[in-house]
This record gives sequence, C-alpha cells and structure tokens, in this order.
Amino acid sequence: MSNTLFKGIISYPITPFRAEDGGVDLETLGRLIDRLIQDGSHAIAPLGSTGESAYLNDNEWDEVAEASVAQVANRVPVVVGISDLTTMNAVRRAKFAEKAGADAVMVLPISYWKLSEREIFQHYQTICEAISIPVMVYNNPVTSGIDIAPELIVRMVKELDNVTMVKESSGDIQRMHKLYHLSDGEIPFYNGSNPLALEAFAAGATGWCTAAPNLIPEWTLRLYEASVAGDLIQAREVFYKQLPVLQFILKGGLPTTIKAGLQICGFEAGIPRHPLLPLDSAGQNELAEMLKQLNG
Amino acid sequence: MSNTLFKGIISYPITPFRAEDGGVDLETLGRLIDRLIQDGSHAIAPLGSTGESAYLNDNEWDEVAEASVAQVANRVPVVVGISDLTTMNAVRRAKFAEKAGADAVMVLPISYWKLSEREIFQHYQTICEAISIPVMVYNNPVTSGIDIAPELIVRMVKELDNVTMVKESSGDIQRMHKLYHLSDGEIPFYNGSNPLALEAFAAGATGWCTAAPNLIPEWTLRLYEASVAGDLIQAREVFYKQLPVLQFILKGGLPTTIKAGLQICGFEAGIPRHPLLPLDSAGQNELAEMLKQLNG
Amino acid sequence: MSNTLFKGIISYPITPFRAEDGGVDLETLGRLIDRLIQDGSHAIAPLGSTGESAYLNDNEWDEVAEASVAQVANRVPVVVGISDLTTMNAVRRAKFAEKAGADAVMVLPISYWKLSEREIFQHYQTICEAISIPVMVYNNPVTSGIDIAPELIVRMVKELDNVTMVKESSGDIQRMHKLYHLSDGEIPFYNGSNPLALEAFAAGATGWCTAAPNLIPEWTLRLYEASVAGDLIQAREVFYKQLPVLQFILKGGLPTTIKAGLQICGFEAGIPRHPLLPLDSAGQNELAEMLKQLNG
Amino acid sequence: MSNTLFKGIISYPITPFRAEDGGVDLETLGRLIDRLIQDGSHAIAPLGSTGESAYLNDNEWDEVAEASVAQVANRVPVVVGISDLTTMNAVRRAKFAEKAGADAVMVLPISYWKLSEREIFQHYQTICEAISIPVMVYNNPVTSGIDIAPELIVRMVKELDNVTMVKESSGDIQRMHKLYHLSDGEIPFYNGSNPLALEAFAAGATGWCTAAPNLIPEWTLRLYEASVAGDLIQAREVFYKQLPVLQFILKGGLPTTIKAGLQICGFEAGIPRHPLLPLDSAGQNELAEMLKQLNG
Repeated sequence: MSNTLFKGIISYPITPFRAEDGGVDLETLGRLIDRLIQDGSHAIAPLGSTGESAYLNDNEWDEVAEASVAQVANRVPVVVGISDLTTMNAVRRAKFAEKAGADAVMVLPISYWKLSEREIFQHYQTICEAISIPVMVYNNPVTSGIDIAPELIVRMVKELDNVTMVKESSGDIQRMHKLYHLSDGEIPFYNGSNPLALEAFAAGATGWCTAAPNLIPEWTLRLYEASVAGDLIQAREVFYKQLPVLQFILKGGLPTTIKAGLQICGFEAGIPRHPLLPLDSAGQNELAEMLKQLNG
Repeated sequence: MSNTLFKGIISYPITPFRAEDGGVDLETLGRLIDRLIQDGSHAIAPLGSTGESAYLNDNEWDEVAEASVAQVANRVPVVVGISDLTTMNAVRRAKFAEKAGADAVMVLPISYWKLSEREIFQHYQTICEAISIPVMVYNNPVTSGIDIAPELIVRMVKELDNVTMVKESSGDIQRMHKLYHLSDGEIPFYNGSNPLALEAFAAGATGWCTAAPNLIPEWTLRLYEASVAGDLIQAREVFYKQLPVLQFILKGGLPTTIKAGLQICGFEAGIPRHPLLPLDSAGQNELAEMLKQLNG
Repeated sequence: MSNTLFKGIISYPITPFRAEDGGVDLETLGRLIDRLIQDGSHAIAPLGSTGESAYLNDNEWDEVAEASVAQVANRVPVVVGISDLTTMNAVRRAKFAEKAGADAVMVLPISYWKLSEREIFQHYQTICEAISIPVMVYNNPVTSGIDIAPELIVRMVKELDNVTMVKESSGDIQRMHKLYHLSDGEIPFYNGSNPLALEAFAAGATGWCTAAPNLIPEWTLRLYEASVAGDLIQAREVFYKQLPVLQFILKGGLPTTIKAGLQICGFEAGIPRHPLLPLDSAGQNELAEMLKQLNG
Repeated sequence: MSNTLFKGIISYPITPFRAEDGGVDLETLGRLIDRLIQDGSHAIAPLGSTGESAYLNDNEWDEVAEASVAQVANRVPVVVGISDLTTMNAVRRAKFAEKAGADAVMVLPISYWKLSEREIFQHYQTICEAISIPVMVYNNPVTSGIDIAPELIVRMVKELDNVTMVKESSGDIQRMHKLYHLSDGEIPFYNGSNPLALEAFAAGATGWCTAAPNLIPEWTLRLYEASVAGDLIQAREVFYKQLPVLQFILKGGLPTTIKAGLQICGFEAGIPRHPLLPLDSAGQNELAEMLKQLNG
C-alpha cells in the first residue's frame, strides 16, 4: 500500500487566463510550472482547487492537463486533479490524464445532492476500473460539500487496488490520527490545509499539497526539511514565520490570493474567473507586506 | 416590487433519462409536465435541483429548457433554474431561457470557492443586466455551499431592477421572518424546504416550490388552499398527513426519491445520473407504503 | 397521556433582587405574579431560565418556590422549574416544590459533562420516583448543553408515569413535527422559543412558555387566541407585530432584557446577578421604542 | 508576562467519593495526589473538570481545595480550578484557594445564559481584583457553553495584571496559533485537549493539563520530554501509542473513565456522582485492554 512516488512539497499551480479574452494562457502556465520545479517542488498538481478546474470547460481542462504533464517532462511526478459532478465526466477526465502521462490522479467527489457512502464508493470504483495509475482520495468538505469519513477512506484503500494515498483538507488533525490508526500507519496521507502544515507533519503526513510555493517556495521547503529531520524546534520556528501567509491565502480563496501574490512578485498571471473577483487593494497591500517580510 | 405572476404550488419536474443510453428523454418530460399542470400546479419550474440541472451538459440543458417552455405553452407561468459555477455560463443560460420564452429565472449561485457578498452581488447583477425577465433569488446553502444573508437578498431586490422574488430553502423559518421585516412584508418569498411547508405558509409565503406534486399533487394543493383561506386547523391536518412523504423525499435526495416514486405510481421516468444511485429496495418499499396511504 | 391543566400562555416571572444587598425581593416577585395573572396568563412558571434559577443558592431557590406558589394561590396552575447539575439536588428541589403545592415541575437536565441517553433517562426516572405531580420534560440545548432527542422524550413519556408534557426550546420546528408523529399527536408540547411562537401554534403546540407577558401580555394572548380559533391571517398579523420584541428579549438574554423592560414599563425589578450585566443604554432605548409602539 | 512556575505535565486528580454515603473521600484523594507526584507530575490541578467540581457543594469544594494544597505540601505547584455560575461565588472560591495556599487559580466562566465579552471580562476582572495569585484563563466551550475568543484572552492578559496563562481546551489547534501570533509568542498556553497533545506541543504549548497521568503517567511524561528535546520522531511515536487511551478517556467523560481506569489499575476511587453513571462493562473491558497494552 505504501507509495513513495509522492512526498514532500506537492505544488499547485494556478491556471492563468489571458487578459484580452479570458482564455487559458498555456505559455504562462508553462513558465509557472518551470518556476515551481526550479524552486524545489517535489511534485506538481495541476487542475486542483487552486487551478480553478471547477471553472474550466472540458476543452480547457484537457488542454491544461496535457500541457502541464508535457511541461513537467518527468522532472518530478505529476498528479492531476479530477473533480466533476458526474461520474461519467470524471472517468473521461481520469482517462485523459492517464493518457497524457500523469503519474496519478487526485479524485474529489463533488456534490450538488449529498452523496451516500454507497454513492461515493461507486464513484471511486468506476474511476479506478477505468484507469491503471494510482488514485489519491481527496477529502475537502468545505469546497466539495462531501465529507468522506476516515473509515470509508480506509475501506477504499483496502478494496480498490489503485487507491493508494489520501489528501486530507478538512483541517481537522484528528482525521489524520484516525487514518493513521485505522491503517496502522500504513496509508500515506497528505495535508491539504495550509494552516495545519506544522501539525500535519508532526502527525506523520507524507507530504503537503499546497499552493504556497507559488509565492514562498523556500519557506515551505524549510518546514518539510525540518520535519523530515525530526527537528521540532526548527519546524515550529519556520512554520510560525510563514503562517500569516498560509492563513491569508486560504481565507481569501487560493486562486484569488495566489494570482494577486504572483503579480506582487512580478509574475503576471491574470485574475480569477467570474464570479470570483480579483483581490481588493487592501488585501493586495496586506499580502505585499507579508511577502516582503518573508522573501526580503 | 410585488409580483403576482407566481403563487401557490410551483412544481419541479424531474428530468427523465432514457434507459438505453442515459440521454435526456424529452417525450417523457413532456408528459410529466402535462400531468403536473393537469393536477393543478400553479407554475412549472424546470431545471431546478430536482431536475438534476447540475448533472446536465450545456446541450442537454438547452434542450430541456426549450422543450419545457414549449410544452407548458403558456398554460401556467414557467420559471427556469439557473445555477452554474461561472457567471459567464449562468448568463448564457439565462439569456437562452428568456429567448425560449421563460416567464422568469430562478438563480442559485453555486460555489467551489466560497463567494463573498461582493461576488454574489456582482454575479446577480451581471445576469440581471443581460436579461429582461424577473429574477428569483434562490438561497439553498446545503446544495450550493453559499448562504445568502437576508440583508443581502433585500439589498439586491432594492438595487437590481429585475430581482423581484426570493426562494428560501435553508429550512430556517427565521429567515422568512427576517425577509418579511426587512421589506415590511413587501418581498414575495417562496418556500423551498418541503418539511417547512405549513410554517412557511403560516409565516406568509406566497408559494411553495416543491417536487412533491410529482407524487402527491392533491395534498400539496389542499395545504395551499387551506393556508390561503386562513384555515389553520385544516392546514395543520393536511400537512401532518403528507409530512412523512415530504421528509422522505428530501432526505433521500429529490431526483432519487421522486424518480422512484414516479415508478411506484406507474409513471416510468428512469433513474438519476451517476454518482447518484437509484433508491434501494428498502426505500422503495417504504415510499410505496406511504404513497398508498395518501393516494389510496 | 393528555394533560389539560396547562395550556395557552404560561408566563415566566423574573426573580427580582434588592438593590441594596442583591438578595431576593419576594415582595416585588409577589406583585409581579399578581400582575401576570391579572393580565391573563393561563399559568405561572417560577424558577425557569428567566427566573435566574441557575444563579440562586438553595435557600433562595426554596424561598422563591414557596412564595410563588403561595402568591398564585390556585388562581392558575403553577409549574416550577427544576434544573440542577446533580440528580440529588434536583430531587430535593422537586420534592420541595411538590410539598409547596406546585401543580407540576418542569425538569431541565443540565450538564457540565455531556450526559448519555442512559444518564438522562435515569435522571428523570429518579426525580419521577420521588414525586407524584406531573413532570414536563424540558429540552433547551443552548442553555443546558444537552439536546434530548425526540425519540428519547417520547420513550420517557411512555415509560415514566408522571412525565406527561414536553417543553421544546431548541427553536427547531422539526422537533415538534417529530414529537407529533412519534406520539400520533398525543403528547402535549409547549413552545419555549419566542421567535417561533406563530409556527409552533401552527404545528399544534398546546401552549407557549414565555417571559414576554412580563412586557406585552395582550399581544401574547392575541396570538394564542387567534391560533386556537384557527384564524391564520389574524395570528400572522399579531405575531409579526410583536416579533421584534420577541427576538430582542431572546437575543439579549431573558433576565437581562425582561428586567430592563419592566423598568421601562415603570415596574422596578432590579438587575440580573453577576456575571450577567444590566442591559446597556443603547439596548434600553431600542427596547423602549419597541414597547412604545406595541403598548401605545 | 512569562510564567515559568507551571510547565510540563499538569495532572488533574479525580475527586473520590465514599461508597457508603457518597461523601468526599479526602484520604483517598491524598493518596492519589501522592501517587501523581511520585509518578512525575510537574504540577497538580485539583477541582478541575476531572475533579467533578461542578457537582460539589460549597463545603465539599472548600474541603477538597484545602486538603489538596496541604497534601501537595509544596512538592510541586498547585493550580485550583474555579468555575462557578455566579461571579460572587467564583470570587469566594478564588479567595479561599489563595488563602489555602494555592499557587494559582484556573478560571472557567460557565454559563446558563450566554455571556457577552463585556460580561466575561468583568467576571475575570472581579476575580482578579480579589486575589493576588496568578490567574489562568480557561477556555472550554464544550463543557462551559462559552467560547472565549483569542483576541479577548490576549486583551485580558494585557489589561488584567494577574492573568498570565491560558488553558485552551477547544481542541482547535488554530486557537493556539492565534494566541501565539497575537502575543508574539509571549503568552504561555497550555493544552487541555488530550487527543491534541502532540500537536499542541509542536505548536509550542508550555504544558499539558491532563487527567491521563492518573492512568498512564510515564507515557504523558515521555511525550513531554521528547517535545521539549525537539525530537519529533520520538514524540510522534509515543503519542500514537497512547492516543487510543487519550481518545477513550475524553469521549467517555473524564470523571467516568478515569475512575473506571483507576479501579482497573487497582486503585479504588469510587464512581462519579449522579446524573453521571459509572462506565459500563463493555467500556471497562475496552479500557482494561488498552491499559494492559500500554502499562504492561
């Protein structure tokens, strides 16, 4: 069940849109991915929450998936986010990602109508049967409207062959404790809640799924390295330094705040798609001040 | 601000899918709409939550909108549901519905990323500026992930010309009290929470947005008629009789339970789309028993 | 199981404290009780949440219980509130109330440690076995920290002889629906949530447990009378008129707001006990304005 | 503002009751306190949640406070828990504790009626003005019904001289992050949520307020020592070993489970007070099994 392909800092690029027509800007995306890899990311995760995948149409989604995998070019592993309201389209996207060369997919069941455990299980099962690459279960109740219980997650890891990893974004550290216990520490879990990064590593997380490396790559790496080395004092210190940024980017919505932050850093990546609005000027100033303190 | 076009029982048809290929079955939809009108519905609301609009692609959505309006053929007013993650596609659908002849649209902002009040307002504003027919604000925190405060609703009614009605599905009667007070009883509000039907009418709701008429049309009418007549004793009596069905269809998810109920009633309308699963047999038996007691 | 002793407006007097030493002012309490009865209350409920029973020591509690029953002097029925952290002291108080001549007791289990269903049941059972007068189960999760499920309430009504009534203060109308259904409409339930008064009567509540008659007795009576007469239009009208006061007194804490309101009405009843503070002057002005509009 | 008197493992003794008459058993309490100190506790905290202080009358409370301080006899510091519904009695108890020789008091405002920030502040202020020993603010929303915001806590530390420490039992690690940031890491905070022990130390907690040393003293010490040494790998390992016990004792209610556990360990300390019931036999077996695995 162990999976050593993904560990450390798993970086989530935003999806840039062109100023002129609002379309996907693949060239800028490519440069952003290069930057993330050069800055030390251990893996790249396109089309996640940060990547505004929920706001792309199918053609755009396919383009971004293909271009991202090609751009990474096997320098680090790639996990592609799959979150679609219908199982049919989730399957289509998962197959597309596999064919494009993704190393894994991260599957978030989203809901209009709440899904029962039976429905969640079958959603994963149908996707798993359609592809051969590993599947990361992704639990994010706030954005998806579905809360997958640790017991169900562990059952899926046991019963569905390619489910091998879990990303937990509920922000509740007890969920990680539960995953650890239910699997005797065997299931690799990844933290998707930025302000919980220190404690998730303390609790044994294999990696941190985060958009923060778009803005403060060194700080995320330092936290990971101190954690892997078991150096709690250093981990705590570098965590508290970056925590204000981690809280800010989460609270304001990742596409909104990361795009604003990239602009502050001199990397023009456009604004999010409506109904999302760009960060207001008070927020921009606050973020600029935080980034200046951290990045010097 | 008053709007007398919509009142009473506003019925939500499911969207039938063909057994052979899963596609939309417009012929069956047409027959269902006829049945709802013949059974006394005061208005028809295609492409709502019940209509699985969240699970339709754009082509399917357009077909259902067009066919529904045509089928109603002005016998009663039609309000078409608009809930789309991007403002751009919500506008496209609203314009399509208007062109197809809808009398109004019901707009539910849905979220992947939570929307701020500024973002919700602008979403409505953009839609309103693109069409000329009335807009019903729709608040349904559980399915949409967004809770629109009564204060914001009232502000939109005041500042956006074609916002003239509110559908409240939070299930919290205090929200209706608040709408009443903030507008001095002027804004017509509609109840979208089935198990709150009695109390919403008591609190002054203009109508009841419900999928129940697919299964128990007479009972919903009787509740409305007793309420309009101010006959509390009769309203209470007919409400408690139908309440078990109202609770059951909500708890099991409306597309799932209404489609099962239609089959029980001898009207074949298929099953919901994956990841939604058909009602299990225990649920079918429970529902059949309830319907037998009510419909004789 | 039916209980016709208590119905209509069940009024909750505050417990007045002397300005000079903070002690209980029995003389003023007596005048307040007289006023409530003269104003038409159908029953009196001393030592409820409004009566600050939680903030009285045992001697004070006994004095208030005894004096209240004596003052009512059988003009209307009396139900005495019993809420104590230990079962032992709850039993002591229930026996004291019975001996003092109370017609019933209203029992609210309160928690420091959450109670299991087994512990709640045994708490009621022990009290029931110690007295012979009827017991009203009181569910008020917000103040007591315990939420008694409707299923457990109905089980207690069935299994414990003197449990014959339920006061529901959760503010959730669905709880009343559940009580109605689980008992085939047989268990009399009383509403303890002021802003739910209209809907609770619509749903069939036998009475309204309220502190509002300290300030606006006629309005509470009018709502009850319209409801009993089945006149929904009139009930709605008088409800919306008094709703701002009902919301205000609940939101600010009943002892705090009712004592402020009594002073506004010219009835000096002191202030609540620390840590509770008197209503601030902005609140006093707001309340005075509301009362002037209602009481003329 | 720093306070070095309290750190490490702050142990909460239960309050034993005699089997024959239910009265407080001071002799057994004395032996339990000796045991906790011999087992390495860095401080003793009588009359906390674990000590059933909520269920003691004033005389009993005084006896336990006096006997506990005397028994500790300055071997380690003592912090006495003060949680009373009225400010007046909280003051009385705080003064009693100070006179008895306590090194500090831990103050939990509890509510029947919710307290405003103004009321919480004044409650603390009144107590602080009556005594000279340090005050630990105690936030425990689940048992007390009041959630003290980090901003208010920090304000009280700044404005009230003897408020110098904070015990956080909300179980939300973000509260500790907030306290750290709002005070630039200056306010010592203590963790009161057992299943959060690892992460609280990771986040910089000065100590762990816990009843676990009654049952597994060595394990709590090992976690503290590994944390102080900054050894994350060791801290994680010893935490996960003891986590099932930590979860179990919290979930079942500390007085209930700790008393059951003491009996399992051969230390007879009676049962909790009604309405609390003793642990049922299934729970006893589960706990016995866990303790056997840990304590050998």
